[in-house]
Amino acid sequence: MDILVVGSVALDSIQTPLGKKEDILGGSAVYFSYSASFFTKVKFVGTVGQDFPAGYLNILKKRPICLKGLQQVKGKTFRWKGRYEDDLNCAETLSTQLNVFSEFNPVLPAEYKKAKCVFMGNIDPQIQLNVLKQVDSPEVTALDTMNFWIESKKKELLKVLKKTNIFIINDGEARQLSGETNLLKAAFGILKMGPRVVVIKKGEHGSLLIDKFGAFAVPAYPLKSVYDPTGAGDTFAGGFLGHLARSKKITKNTLRQAVVYGGIMASFNVESFSLNRLRRLTKQDINNRYREFKKITNF
Amino acid sequence: MDILVVGSVALDSIQTPLGKKEDILGGSAVYFSYSASFFTKVKFVGTVGQDFPAGYLNILKKRPICLKGLQQVKGKTFRWKGRYEDDLNCAETLSTQLNVFSEFNPVLPAEYKKAKCVFMGNIDPQIQLNVLKQVDSPEVTALDTMNFWIESKKKELLKVLKKTNIFIINDGEARQLSGETNLLKAAFGILKMGPRVVVIKKGEHGSLLIDKFGAFAVPAYPLKSVYDPTGAGDTFAGGFLGHLARSKKITKNTLRQAVVYGGIMASFNVESFSLNRLRRLTKQDINNRYREFKKITNF
Repeated sequence: MDILVVGSVALDSIQTPLGKKEDILGGSAVYFSYSASFFTKVKFVGTVGQDFPAGYLNILKKRPICLKGLQQVKGKTFRWKGRYEDDLNCAETLSTQLNVFSEFNPVLPAEYKKAKCVFMGNIDPQIQLNVLKQVDSPEVTALDTMNFWIESKKKELLKVLKKTNIFIINDGEARQLSGETNLLKAAFGILKMGPRVVVIKKGEHGSLLIDKFGAFAVPAYPLKSVYDPTGAGDTFAGGFLGHLARSKKITKNTLRQAVVYGGIMASFNVESFSLNRLRRLTKQDINNRYREFKKITNF
Repeated sequence: MDILVVGSVALDSIQTPLGKKEDILGGSAVYFSYSASFFTKVKFVGTVGQDFPAGYLNILKKRPICLKGLQQVKGKTFRWKGRYEDDLNCAETLSTQLNVFSEFNPVLPAEYKKAKCVFMGNIDPQIQLNVLKQVDSPEVTALDTMNFWIESKKKELLKVLKKTNIFIINDGEARQLSGETNLLKAAFGILKMGPRVVVIKKGEHGSLLIDKFGAFAVPAYPLKSVYDPTGAGDTFAGGFLGHLARSKKITKNTLRQAVVYGGIMASFNVESFSLNRLRRLTKQDINNRYREFKKITNF
């Protein structure tokens, strides 16, 4: 099953304790689709400005990622500037320039409308909703969001959430959206808002999958060096949904494996800035780390 | 194998978001020994004042815990007063009254000296060392400590650490002692200080076991309500060392199972104040949660 993804394409400027980079390739749709492309084909929906480097486009073109849904329009590409201190779980936003993103109104190419699996990356919930409406009969709909939209567009977010099977968010956002401090209570609260499955990402502490049958808890792959956590959540979602999309059925087991693949993909991603680590990655690397992770967690 | 434990006996006054209690039974040796007593026999070394309630002694006497090494002396029992806010991983100490603990100089009963398994709970490293010196030929020596001793008695702590097989600490303390922000680097740094195994407790985020062969990572048992995290680390250590002590051999597998039993015991403990939850606990409850945990984490 192919995946249709809508999300941001960004030029990121990032400082972490281990380095500093300017205008590097980023954005939720970029990280997601590159990660998912190791598992299945991706249909990309996004927008960039005229300043977007052709070299960055080529990075995506080398993968099984269809870019027919990527608009290049007048103006400047979306830019995000952020900083991480020692606590790499927490980004401090220094500036956000929406640029072409502020007028983003995606119109799906005809063949995109038949997509069965849709990922709505972290963007304005109204845009997520607009995209979802254009898809004929999606079977798997997965959603990400962030604190900003929970605060400013909760009504629209709750609308998308009602049409969503799988909600992938981080622990802080789960607490914020549900009003519950306890993560289990938060997840069960969110299940009442529509999705059948909630996946809560806890950064270096792993993740938690909750559905009506109960919980699946898994640690993160232990890493000695984290260079840049940017995109970890989207890379996670790419591995997660990529594995589901390539599986014949969505079962308790494939969902759990998908969470592990998500964590594995995120663990690679944070080992370098932008897509640098993923660009050197092979399917063999992914399978090896999956097997190693099984050994690390087995008892 | 019996376990010899030395540590604190305390009257705790505790505030958490879910309640407030005064002068309840606590202390590292108390939580540890009660937890370990579900797995093996315990030899208790500690001190209390004349004000120590006989009822509290009876709680311990009902378990396979030998109290010959518990001195009752003139003066008042050690008291700790603490508060937890919403972040239950982090205790704020409101006051500490050492009382009889300030003159604690344990002399082991003769039959204690043959102990093969020793747990040195969180107390002054000089006392830990004094106790260890009195044991003829210990095979398994496990150690806990806290930020206060890392700051104020690092030299003595490093001395005990050299004579320790297994070091059980929390994430913040591992970072503080090693000077490394990354937990894996912290653990490998600590391995160079003497112990063969380092177990890092991360509270609600589970734990990490590191030895020269690599890592074992495990999440915490997901709980809907945490009433009081006090003693969670000691209850963890009790389940961990209890399982090792009852196992015929210490292997990669028994070490991993021990970490899981530690987490299970801690998960029960935080469900109520003091020993209230553990006092209602059966071996069957422990085995059921262990099996449930296997299901929750299996993929």
